[in-house]
Parts: sequence; structure tokens; C-alpha cells
Amino acid sequence: MRTSELFARTLRDAPADEEAPSAQLLIRGAFVRKLMAGIYNLLPLGWRVLRKVEQIVREEMDAAGAQELRMPALVPSEPWKATGRWQAYAAEQLMFTLRDRHDRELGLGPTHEEIVTPLVDAEYSSYRDLPVNVYHIQWKYRDEARPRSGLIRAREFLMKDAYTFDRDPEGLKVAYAKMVDAYKAIFTRCGLDFRVVEADPGLIGGDVNHEFMAPADVGEDLFVSCDNCDYAANVEAASSHPPKAPDVAMESMERVPTPGRTTIEAVADLLGVPESGVLKAMVYRAGDELVAVLLPGDREVSESKLRRVFAPAEVEMLGDADFEKHGLAKGYVGPQGLQGATIVADHHVRGGANWVAGANEPDQHATGVNEGRDFSVDRWEDLAGVREGDTCPRCQTGTLKLGRSIEVGHTFQLGTKYSVPLKATFLDEDGTEKPFVMGCYGIGVSRIVASVVEQHHDEQGITWPKHLAPYQVVVIPTNMDQDDVVATGERIYAELREAGIEVVLDDRDERAGVKFTDAELIGYPLAIVVGKKGLANGVVEAKLRASGEKRELPVDEAVAAIPGLLGEAP
Amino acid sequence: MRTSELFARTLRDAPADEEAPSAQLLIRGAFVRKLMAGIYNLLPLGWRVLRKVEQIVREEMDAAGAQELRMPALVPSEPWKATGRWQAYAAEQLMFTLRDRHDRELGLGPTHEEIVTPLVDAEYSSYRDLPVNVYHIQWKYRDEARPRSGLIRAREFLMKDAYTFDRDPEGLKVAYAKMVDAYKAIFTRCGLDFRVVEADPGLIGGDVNHEFMAPADVGEDLFVSCDNCDYAANVEAASSHPPKAPDVAMESMERVPTPGRTTIEAVADLLGVPESGVLKAMVYRAGDELVAVLLPGDREVSESKLRRVFAPAEVEMLGDADFEKHGLAKGYVGPQGLQGATIVADHHVRGGANWVAGANEPDQHATGVNEGRDFSVDRWEDLAGVREGDTCPRCQTGTLKLGRSIEVGHTFQLGTKYSVPLKATFLDEDGTEKPFVMGCYGIGVSRIVASVVEQHHDEQGITWPKHLAPYQVVVIPTNMDQDDVVATGERIYAELREAGIEVVLDDRDERAGVKFTDAELIGYPLAIVVGKKGLANGVVEAKLRASGEKRELPVDEAVAAIPGLLGEAP
Repeated sequence: MRTSELFARTLRDAPADEEAPSAQLLIRGAFVRKLMAGIYNLLPLGWRVLRKVEQIVREEMDAAGAQELRMPALVPSEPWKATGRWQAYAAEQLMFTLRDRHDRELGLGPTHEEIVTPLVDAEYSSYRDLPVNVYHIQWKYRDEARPRSGLIRAREFLMKDAYTFDRDPEGLKVAYAKMVDAYKAIFTRCGLDFRVVEADPGLIGGDVNHEFMAPADVGEDLFVSCDNCDYAANVEAASSHPPKAPDVAMESMERVPTPGRTTIEAVADLLGVPESGVLKAMVYRAGDELVAVLLPGDREVSESKLRRVFAPAEVEMLGDADFEKHGLAKGYVGPQGLQGATIVADHHVRGGANWVAGANEPDQHATGVNEGRDFSVDRWEDLAGVREGDTCPRCQTGTLKLGRSIEVGHTFQLGTKYSVPLKATFLDEDGTEKPFVMGCYGIGVSRIVASVVEQHHDEQGITWPKHLAPYQVVVIPTNMDQDDVVATGERIYAELREAGIEVVLDDRDERAGVKFTDAELIGYPLAIVVGKKGLANGVVEAKLRASGEKRELPVDEAVAAIPGLLGEAP
Repeated sequence: MRTSELFARTLRDAPADEEAPSAQLLIRGAFVRKLMAGIYNLLPLGWRVLRKVEQIVREEMDAAGAQELRMPALVPSEPWKATGRWQAYAAEQLMFTLRDRHDRELGLGPTHEEIVTPLVDAEYSSYRDLPVNVYHIQWKYRDEARPRSGLIRAREFLMKDAYTFDRDPEGLKVAYAKMVDAYKAIFTRCGLDFRVVEADPGLIGGDVNHEFMAPADVGEDLFVSCDNCDYAANVEAASSHPPKAPDVAMESMERVPTPGRTTIEAVADLLGVPESGVLKAMVYRAGDELVAVLLPGDREVSESKLRRVFAPAEVEMLGDADFEKHGLAKGYVGPQGLQGATIVADHHVRGGANWVAGANEPDQHATGVNEGRDFSVDRWEDLAGVREGDTCPRCQTGTLKLGRSIEVGHTFQLGTKYSVPLKATFLDEDGTEKPFVMGCYGIGVSRIVASVVEQHHDEQGITWPKHLAPYQVVVIPTNMDQDDVVATGERIYAELREAGIEVVLDDRDERAGVKFTDAELIGYPLAIVVGKKGLANGVVEAKLRASGEKRELPVDEAVAAIPGLLGEAP
């Protein structure tokens, strides 16, 4: 490709409405153009990169035995209503919906469990047909409340979604492990630094699930990872190892007046104890049940853990009127002597003793409150949000660190969550009809492009890993008024094309500085600079984008040396 | 791929709700599955075929200098309103429209002039930037009133649309000719029999345009072609060479009573003349003008020609009340002495003399009516619909034949139809701002798949051209209980894979008849049959699907012979 013909005009300045470095660089480098919020045109350079990611995904999925097909993006609402997801997505307004000329409700599918399950069910009827793994790579749609960071959270995005169907949970585990391996291979080939973390299932559901997180400052997801073992988890799913019970003598329980002190901070301050010494008691309604959740005063309840612990019951915090109705003293609730509520304690409560706790009377707290003697716990659960510095729940020695990351993949062991409501069954060897045991596996293909840029850029622009770069080599003749410079550039360009190398010739009648700036912004892994002075000495200059390393090559050996130089590029 | 693992189950019977042979065969052969009216799942076999067509399109577009990019499917309404097409599509309910969570009107783009024009305009500002040709291959959406014939008229379909931008009409002509050549190469490589025909511009607009028509009985489009030269045209755009004026003496004009005879047929019957001897006069309102269209009584007015002749004025046929208001005798209108209407005659009127025509009085006609003496024509135009047997307008000697066909491609010289309303301009060499001169070029990629099946099938199933077949070769071991048969099948399969040939091994524990039936239905170009009897003689059988030709191959030479055999396949 000749730069003079390439449909791409780089921009000197970043657009004012994009904050993420990847969005700024992809726009400045003429990879993408915004059409409207969360919806982008991909210019030829961006399209080439995306197609390379797509092909890596395809190759690894095929190698793992998955079969590519394509389901429509425009989907009927009926199967979504059968699983309850039409309503769930509608509640968050996340699905684009429309009506056709016959007033039939349709949606733009954000994921395809409701389509693939009946599809497989219609073809397959016996255990002999199983297992099967099908996938497609498709533009998908989500009406995000706040589309942002360019291709990272877009409203139209390219996604690979795969679905496995097995006879039983053992089969699912095998299929799941294969997919996790394929995902690792994909992200590695894309040059991404990533972590596999335990995650919250969200709107998809199911039991076990993992996110593939690419650490990046612009990431919307917080995850913790252990500095000692391989434990990593999304903060919404992470747990930590609670401290052991302290080796202290139990004090006697005493009443203390705490007038107007309804917050942990105020009570700790008044009594001169750390917040971690005050026992926090949060009261919720979980379905028909009243629940008091206990945790150390310096910790917060994780809402997503809470929802999972009490699912399928809806959990909601008690309002002021409810406190009155149940005779509870708001701001002064403590577990000792508490009536009418189930007491559920986070494991961290085991690590404390001689608590300060509400006395269940206005303006009164108790000190020296101890579990076992003064109150008992109905259920112990993992309910506290995890914090940086907590102890790793896996190795129980390492320390957890917090980091921001972008979710580039997500795998789910769905089990029968979709096959049961959609009545998708097979005849098993024992002659009984059983629901398919399913898994689903998503990768944000266009999101990978942006994530790679977040991890591979510098002040000057993008530093594409060579397998993703739109072209591997740019040939830059620096003096367009010199016939031998122009001719040598043309010759090297022609020979590289002949050798099957993806190459751009910057044949514009521009200053060398403009060409260098564009080459660094766009991020070609290797630049071959053909200049008047070099040619006089019989050399051209090779420059590796990522390392900045420069090397002189004899003109006649340059083309032969390029595959080796590319081999050195990341 | 092993048939036992392939996600595909063939069907013995055609589905009741599909009539087109391609839809029936693509479903029976497990290429596609219907999700809802006009919307299909593509199973792995169908997806492979579609991807091959897509790749052929891509290669030929790239070779012609077009640059691939991707515009979103979800598009804002504003630019569509600027060109008036939002309203035009709305009138026919053809565009799927929706609203996002912020109540912004969006559409699913059925074509992308309104998106590509501002995109190019934002990047390019000078004549030096031109020409440029960009395209994308994308799933598109049309809310068809009657989706039918499977992938031929679907509501979600894969389309390639390209757009050229030039300085002037001469540049457009060059770009257009390149695209026509690329299209010919694409359809030829896909194994399609096709015609390039002159066509009606429809909702896209512009001046010159051509359709690429694949003859097929299920086609919705009628086209004529000359049996002597290369003239071909959609019936909506076709013309024919009118006959010369007959060499007969003018008779005198006479009144004849024709009570109650208001149709051509009734008048011809009463007076004993052929319908072609009665002068038909149809009265329309074209904007503010009253127009009487004359043509021989055995011909019909082409509404699309009429619209084009009087554009941009709206044309509508006169209602009963209008006849009265203008003092016209409905059913008895004739050109002689007609007041207040422009007389527009189709060229075929030149071929007649001594016409029977309405006498502009109820129940009265005139005979011996002649142009020149009894009436004069204000405008001569091409307005009659063309018929089989008409004379070719190009060579003026051949005869036109009618045929049904499927539109697989359509190219348009748009000129400035979109760049003017969208204010998309460049600075020309002479220092003036000029609108881009545009062309647009569409190919129905998924429609090609169905069109190829329409042209390539027999009683047993599909006869894929080898470059489109999902796999080139199927290896069929016929006796699965014979170890040497199974082992030889496996060996040939492994060696063909090794040789890079796309091959399926039908390893199912099924009767040979079932495997043969499926192989013919799916339409693999070449089957290698490994049987007990053949192996005893040291041979396997090769069978070419399209020709039905069978050949015995020595077992050890079979793999080496296959590329040659495939070379013989169409």
C-alpha cells in the first residue's frame, strides 16, 4: 500500500471527547472514526488490525475443536422471554429492541444463548451426538448507559461467542478447560498481558466463571491478585482469608452512652477505639426474612456477594419506616439480644473480640461484646468486600493487590440454566431425557484491539505487536526530490511485497519529519529509512518501533535482512 | 472434518414453508436453518460457503484498488433525513428503525451512502486526495414485506457495498468501468451464469446503472436480452426498436358509434381490427400538467419509465372526477382535437397508421386517424413496456427474449446525488469547492450462495462449483465393520488433509446408501468411495458430483490423483 493512496489521514491532536489513550491514539492514527456515542467507523488501518485479531481467535477456536457458524444479530423476543432475560435486559435498558412491519418484537442480540440452545436442540437428540462446541464472530449490540473509552465499551462491537453442549457436568468441565486454554493462547498471541480471574456471573448466570482481564489504567474492572500465588479475582467475586481469633481475654459487656453517634466513625471516635473494633450490623430484607449482616466496622458489604448468598430471593436494605415497624433502633443495632432477624456474619468477624456494638436502644452502645457468649451467629458467610492488603484466600500467606483492568474474555459454566427453561434435552444412554449441560465463552474482539493499544503505546504513538500491526514495515524515502532515494524506496517496497511482507511505502511529497511522526503514531513495527546521506554510504536505516533500536543495513542486503529484524520485534 | 463430529444433520424432506429450490436444498443439506421469516442461522457448512464467496469478493475488490473498511450497521437518522431517504424508506417501511435509551432515532442501514459520504468528506479536502474507492462487507437489514426464497430475499443479509469518489464525471466513468470488470470477475469465479443489464435506479437514484442478473426460474426480476447482440436490460429499463411507419395510404377519418365500448379489446372486437390498430390514450397528471400518453392498443405503459420521463414531478393517473372536471370522455379519449393536455407518444406509435381512436365524446370513436394530419405529438418518448419478440434497440435486428433472474449485483453512477445534500465537497485545482462525484456498487454476498444453488443443482442435491463447495472431497468408507475399509478411509483422509485439501471423512456407522445420499445432497465436488470389493481389487472409486463420472483409482495412487480430478470438476 502506498501512503498517498491509503484512506487514512492522521491527526496531530487528540479529539476532545475521548479520554482513554487507546481511543485517542486509534483516532489520531486514523484507525477509527467516531460516528456517534459508542459507535465507530473502522478505517482501513483499523479494519486490518481487527481482522488479524479475528483470525487469531478463529484459528485457536478451530484448533480447540469448536465449529464456526453464524446466528443472526436480529433475534426474536420469544426465547428471551422464556428465559426471563428479555425482562432482565429491559430493566437495565441494555438491549436494543425494535418492532418489524408486522409489529413483532425483535432485539439486537447482545449474546446468543437463547438462539443457540434451540438450534442445537433441533439438530441433536441423542447423547451420541454430544459433545459439541459451536461459535460465531459477530457484531453485537448493547445500549450502554455510558459508552466510553472508544472500542473498550462500545454500543456496536465485534464479539466471539462460543457455546458448548455436554451430557453431564464432567463433560462440561473438560470442554471448559479446553476453552480456557484456547483463550490463553488467543490473548498470548495478541500480545496481551492478562490474568484469569474468578468473577461474578452477572446477567449470564451459571456457577463457575472466569474473566480474562488485561491490566490497564483505563480499565473499568477492579481485580485483586495475590503477590505469592496465582490467585486472582474480580473484586465483586474476590474473597480474602480472615484473620484468626485474637488471643485476648474476654472483657465484661458494659453499656455506654453514645448520644447521636449513629455512624461507625463517630462511635469509634467517641470511645477511642479503631473502626475495626466496632461491629457493624446492616439490616436487610431477603425475601420475607429479616437479616442482620455483621462485619468489622472498617469493612463494607459487597452487594454482589450479598445477592448471590440470598439468591433467588431479592435483597433490599431496610428503610427508616421498616426500622420503626420492627422496633429496631437505627444506628444502634447490635446482635446481642436482637429479636426477629437472622444473624449472618462475615468470616472476618471471627478475627475480632470485645466488640463495640449497638445496644438496640437509641443513644446506647455496648462494649466487650463477644460472639459465643453475648450473641450467636446463625450463618457464617463471605460477605465483605475485599481490600488491598488482605490475605490471599488460596495460599493464605500472600497479600492481595488491587489493579484496574479491561475484561477481554469471560467464560461461564452455565449448567442447565438455559436448557431447562428452553426445554432443550437429549436422550441419554439410560433412556431418560436430560437437559443439555452448557457452557458459554465470550471474547471482545474489537475490545482486544483497544486493550492492546492500552498496553502497547508510548508518547509517540502505538507500538503494535507485529502480529497485530496493520502492516509490518513502512519504507520511508526521506528526500522525494532525489531520484535515487525515490527509486531505492520503490525497489525495496516492490521486493518486500514480492516476499509477501505487509509493507507501506510512504511516497508522499512530505518532509521526513512528517513521515517519521506518522510512522511512530501508527506504530509500524519496523521502519526502513532511505535517505540521501545513507545512500551515499550505500546504507539504509532500519528502526524497530518498540525498542527504538536503529541499525544500518547495506542497501543490497536490506530486503534479505528484514525478516530477521521483524523476528526481533515483539 | 469428520461427519460424526460435524454440526450438520441433513433432512430427507424439504420444509413445507420454502418453495425456492435453493432454500429447500440449503435447508435439507444442513447449510442453513430458518430462525424466523427472512432470517436464517448459517450452520458450519453454509458458513464455509459464504466465507468463500466473501473472500472472492474481497480479493477482486482489493485487486481493483478498493480499500476495505467497516462502517457500523447501527446508523444515526440525521444524514438520512438530509438526503430524504429516511422518509423514502419509511414510506415503504423497508428500514428497521429503533430508538436508543436517550430516545435518539437510529436505523439499521440497508445501504451506506449517508455514512460514507460524510466520512470521506471529513478526511479528504483536496482534488489531490482523489480518487478513492472504499468498501465493506457487512450484514445488512431490510424489513421486506414478503421475505422469500431463503437467502435470496432475506431481512438480514451479507452485502458488499463499495463507494467511489471522483473529481468529475470522467473520473467516475473510469472508476465505474473498473468496478464492472471486478464484478464480472467475481461472478465468474463464483461459477454464476450472469448478464449485465441496464436497470432502473429505484431508491438509490443516479443516472447510469447496471444490474448483474443471474438467470433462474425463481428470480423476481424480469429481464430481456437480444438473441443477436449483447443487449440486455431489466424490463423496467428495457426499450425496443419501434417498427417503421407502414407503407399504406391514409384513409379518411370517420366517426363510428361504439356505445359502451370503453376498453381497447371491446372496440377492436366491435370494429374487427387488431388491438394493435387501436390508439390507446392514457391521461395522467404530471405535476401541474395534464398529459395524454399514446401507444398502440396492445402495449402497456411502463410506470417506471413514466416516472423517469416526468421526474421530479409526481405522476398520477386521472381519477373519474378529474375526467369530468376537464371535460374528458373517459374511455373515449383520442388525440385528435384534444384540448388542454400535452400529447406524449411512445415511439411505437410511429409504426402505425389509420388508427382507431377515441373521438372525445361518449360512445364515439374515429377511424382512419393519422399522426401529422389529424393530430400532432408534443413529445416522443420511450414509454411502452417491452415484450418478448420485440426488436432489439441496440442492433435493431435481433429479437428480445424474456427471462427471470436474480439480481446479484447493482452498480450506480450516482454523480452528486448524495454529495450535494450532504455538502460533501473538495477544493478543485481551479480553487473552487465542488461536490464529490460518486458511484456506488453493491453485491448480495449471501444471495450469491442461493443463486449458485439455483443454477447448480439436480434431483439429488447441490452441485457446488469447486471453489464454493464447503469441502472439496468426501471420503466414504462403505463397510464400517471391515477394518481395512475403515483404515484405508482414515489413511486417505489423513493424507488429503496433509496435502491441504478440504476433506470430510464420513466416519458414521451408517449404510453406504445413506452416505451416498448425503454426499450428493450436500454436493461435495468429488467423492472417494472405499469399499470392501474395491479394496480386494486394490482400487477405490472416485466420483465427480457434477458430471456423475466414475473412475477407479489404485489405492496407493488415489491421493496423488485427486488434485487432477478436482481440476476436472467445474
